[in-house]
Amino acid sequence: MPAPLRLKGIPASAGYAEGPLHSLEQVCAGYSPSGLPDLEKATLEAAVGAAIESLAALIETSEGDAAEILEFQIAMLEDDALTGPAFAAIAQGSAADEAWQQALNVEISGYENSDQDYFRARAADIRDIRDRVLRALSLESGFTAPVGAILYGDDIAPTRFLETDWSKGGGIALRRGSTASHVAMLARARGVPMVVGLCSGDAAITGLALLDAEHGGIVLAPSAVEIEEFRKFSSSFAARQDKARAYLAGPALTKLGTPVRVQINIADPSDVDAVDVANCDGVGLMRTEFLFGHASGLPDEETQYRAYAHVLEWAGEKPVTIRTVDAGGDKPVPGFTVEESNPFLGLRGIRLSLAHPEIFRVQIRALLRAGVHGNLKVMFPMIAVPEEYERACVLFAEERAKLEAVGLPHKLPPLGIMVEVPSVAIAPEAFADVAFFSIGSNDLTQYVMAAARDNGAVAALNAVRNPAVLRLISQVAAYGAANGILVSLCGDAGGDPATIPALLEAGLRDLSVVPAQLAMAKAAIAEVSV
Amino acid sequence: MPAPLRLKGIPASAGYAEGPLHSLEQVCAGYSPSGLPDLEKATLEAAVGAAIESLAALIETSEGDAAEILEFQIAMLEDDALTGPAFAAIAQGSAADEAWQQALNVEISGYENSDQDYFRARAADIRDIRDRVLRALSLESGFTAPVGAILYGDDIAPTRFLETDWSKGGGIALRRGSTASHVAMLARARGVPMVVGLCSGDAAITGLALLDAEHGGIVLAPSAVEIEEFRKFSSSFAARQDKARAYLAGPALTKLGTPVRVQINIADPSDVDAVDVANCDGVGLMRTEFLFGHASGLPDEETQYRAYAHVLEWAGEKPVTIRTVDAGGDKPVPGFTVEESNPFLGLRGIRLSLAHPEIFRVQIRALLRAGVHGNLKVMFPMIAVPEEYERACVLFAEERAKLEAVGLPHKLPPLGIMVEVPSVAIAPEAFADVAFFSIGSNDLTQYVMAAARDNGAVAALNAVRNPAVLRLISQVAAYGAANGILVSLCGDAGGDPATIPALLEAGLRDLSVVPAQLAMAKAAIAEVSV
Repeated sequence: MPAPLRLKGIPASAGYAEGPLHSLEQVCAGYSPSGLPDLEKATLEAAVGAAIESLAALIETSEGDAAEILEFQIAMLEDDALTGPAFAAIAQGSAADEAWQQALNVEISGYENSDQDYFRARAADIRDIRDRVLRALSLESGFTAPVGAILYGDDIAPTRFLETDWSKGGGIALRRGSTASHVAMLARARGVPMVVGLCSGDAAITGLALLDAEHGGIVLAPSAVEIEEFRKFSSSFAARQDKARAYLAGPALTKLGTPVRVQINIADPSDVDAVDVANCDGVGLMRTEFLFGHASGLPDEETQYRAYAHVLEWAGEKPVTIRTVDAGGDKPVPGFTVEESNPFLGLRGIRLSLAHPEIFRVQIRALLRAGVHGNLKVMFPMIAVPEEYERACVLFAEERAKLEAVGLPHKLPPLGIMVEVPSVAIAPEAFADVAFFSIGSNDLTQYVMAAARDNGAVAALNAVRNPAVLRLISQVAAYGAANGILVSLCGDAGGDPATIPALLEAGLRDLSVVPAQLAMAKAAIAEVSV
Repeated sequence: MPAPLRLKGIPASAGYAEGPLHSLEQVCAGYSPSGLPDLEKATLEAAVGAAIESLAALIETSEGDAAEILEFQIAMLEDDALTGPAFAAIAQGSAADEAWQQALNVEISGYENSDQDYFRARAADIRDIRDRVLRALSLESGFTAPVGAILYGDDIAPTRFLETDWSKGGGIALRRGSTASHVAMLARARGVPMVVGLCSGDAAITGLALLDAEHGGIVLAPSAVEIEEFRKFSSSFAARQDKARAYLAGPALTKLGTPVRVQINIADPSDVDAVDVANCDGVGLMRTEFLFGHASGLPDEETQYRAYAHVLEWAGEKPVTIRTVDAGGDKPVPGFTVEESNPFLGLRGIRLSLAHPEIFRVQIRALLRAGVHGNLKVMFPMIAVPEEYERACVLFAEERAKLEAVGLPHKLPPLGIMVEVPSVAIAPEAFADVAFFSIGSNDLTQYVMAAARDNGAVAALNAVRNPAVLRLISQVAAYGAANGILVSLCGDAGGDPATIPALLEAGLRDLSVVPAQLAMAKAAIAEVSV
């Protein structure tokens, strides 16, 4: 019996899972070629069709970002440019699985060698398509992971996450991956335990494993004592979650009865559909990047207006804080953002919007018009100097005057800023005119620590609880309190039970968290003595 | 007569130049092919030989980085892998100029399409080689710029800078370029006026031009009034420079007689050879990146030891502050640094050294041994948390014990840190144990403003005189004064006459500047009332 092996990693979605390991690299176990080109062609056609069908079925149960990714994959599979070379190889005598794999590998390598990060990132989608068809070819024999398994590999494709049955447990353990990836966001939203950045060395990884995604680690070939200890941790976590559920519906109060506002962060208008508005104090951050980056081009005013109005009407009288588009950084938009050697320190957020006023004005008009549908607030990302805020305000005033002139209903919302560039947190008095501050702790931390939020090699430095980061947060909270400017926080730290005490001690009384973290956040607040 | 046209840009090397514009894009004006393969082959051989000779001649008058770049280019020209395809095309009937250009363009495009920034950056070297041979082919007819011309184009190759005669004036005006490029550093060191990031639009740019590299701009087709005004500015600049020269030899004193230490920044041991040690208070920053990134691999202990000892012996009793290798960021080292999507926020400086202790220990031993040759101080770049400093100190202690054990002469230097990650400047009390602080204003500014120092699109935000940056500098100066920790500043801001008043008002009394800026810095200090 092998000795237990403990591997350390970074928690990406808290929780515990105990189950057999299942390798993510295992695809296409048992395809037997017929040797007949016509039959191989028909088999590949059927497999591509099956892959498209399975994607379409997944779309039925997916929303927002997830549905878009799947639609993109279907469009690729329906494109002869992608499938043509495989059929050509079959006509020359290749087996369907070999032809498909080789043709797609050429395509993948083309994307991987692109100059542009955006296209390199698309390589993962093509790999996903390749493996989906290969699995269809092998009739998925030997492929499906046992329910409750811990999926293990370099990285996991979003569709693989979506088509896995998580109802009976299971988890994800990745050698690479990132806590900021789409899958990590999905895992947190659905409560699937996930660890990234596992230091596995060359260890052979099979058998039963214990995944601790609260502290970040996995135990392979565990001893009975280890299993017992693990189950204690796991039960304690489950008990805390159960206890937290009791907090969901009530107002958030600290141990001393101090009220704390808890709003939600959303990335897509449909995110609110499953949330009871009574359980939160409004929307602290509505991202608008979901509108951009579509193959169909930049979003028109009407599309934006409808998206904003949907959330405002859901919220009723509660505030909805919409952030103008924060493209750039790690969110490239073809035809809008530019290729840069350090995109996190480049033309992103308000910088990009001000550089493209013709695009920005469309969003501003949609926001002004949506304003009549509820309690709208608007904030600008990546403000570094007061002039940027002033220029953005001028654009709002100009577009408002135009709407006034043509008699369209509209309302000028309070205009605030994100506090994420350190210059703002260090000298907030330069921004005395803004309507409110919203601390973006993810970006603020990466700049204060000079450690990129998506780089595993500096993950230990990227710590929101570093005294320097907390000092800035505390300074901004104190400045806001002294000057009557509302200060909230909408970074991931706001939903992290381990960080909430420090944030409240720094003086914050307004947090915004993803809907899945609402209950745990309120429960954590109830433990703090402020 | 065309109307005057004013173009704005960013000053990269202060000064004024008036002269005819000369396009940098103009190469190979008048080559006439013979139509005889043997003759074309001989002509190309001769041109490659002439190019090598001209590079060798340039090496004679160059030092350090400049000489290395040229040696690399000679090695490329002597490599059959580079020249072979052109000769093959000639054998097939191509003309020498056409064959050379096409073969090199293929090579350049290979480098440009590389995944790795490092290789993409090498494309500029190959372009330089291509054009040098093309110029040799055309016997340089019509190529040489008139003496005193303003060289204009997208960018300029380092060799083109080095082979230009700047003794009779002239300047550089670039549409792209960066104030942090090698050519910009050379231009500042030699006093050649240079402007980068010119917004030229589609203007046809020819004729007489006035280059104002103090404020950042160029006037084309100037009127008589404009010429007169320009000459007033230019004379005033020259007068200030003359006046400054009188300050070079004396100690730096403010208007009120407060002494200020002015040390020098060097990037190569040979940089000190042309400096009179009596004119400065020591070396505030000796970079050690020059030792890394050679084709021959990482530097051995002996090479490092000799380089450090050379500067220590030059300085005598004055301090020499050597910074451990600051690789990564915009300074990749093959075999040491890693490819990252945001290298400025990645594994660089002390992070990289601690990740590769086997490489770091070699530098530490060389530093400990060099310590006996003078007044050595050592500092670590990119420190973000106290643990990094502590780990580096442990490595020094361990290597010292080893040298002690084998009886090699050595001396443990005071160990200080760069203050460039905002976390250190925001909470300096976490670093109460360090021997000294040296503020790296370039990096500190780019992190505080979240604006990369080498990205023209956010250049306006990258401002050291932003109140938030100055507040941090002032906090660190106050903390150092109150706790007996010496605080100096070794960023480019220390040598900028326009910024020196703000730095002294922030409490700094110790600046380190490139040797070419010593006199102007002392003159600027004399104008400040602190």
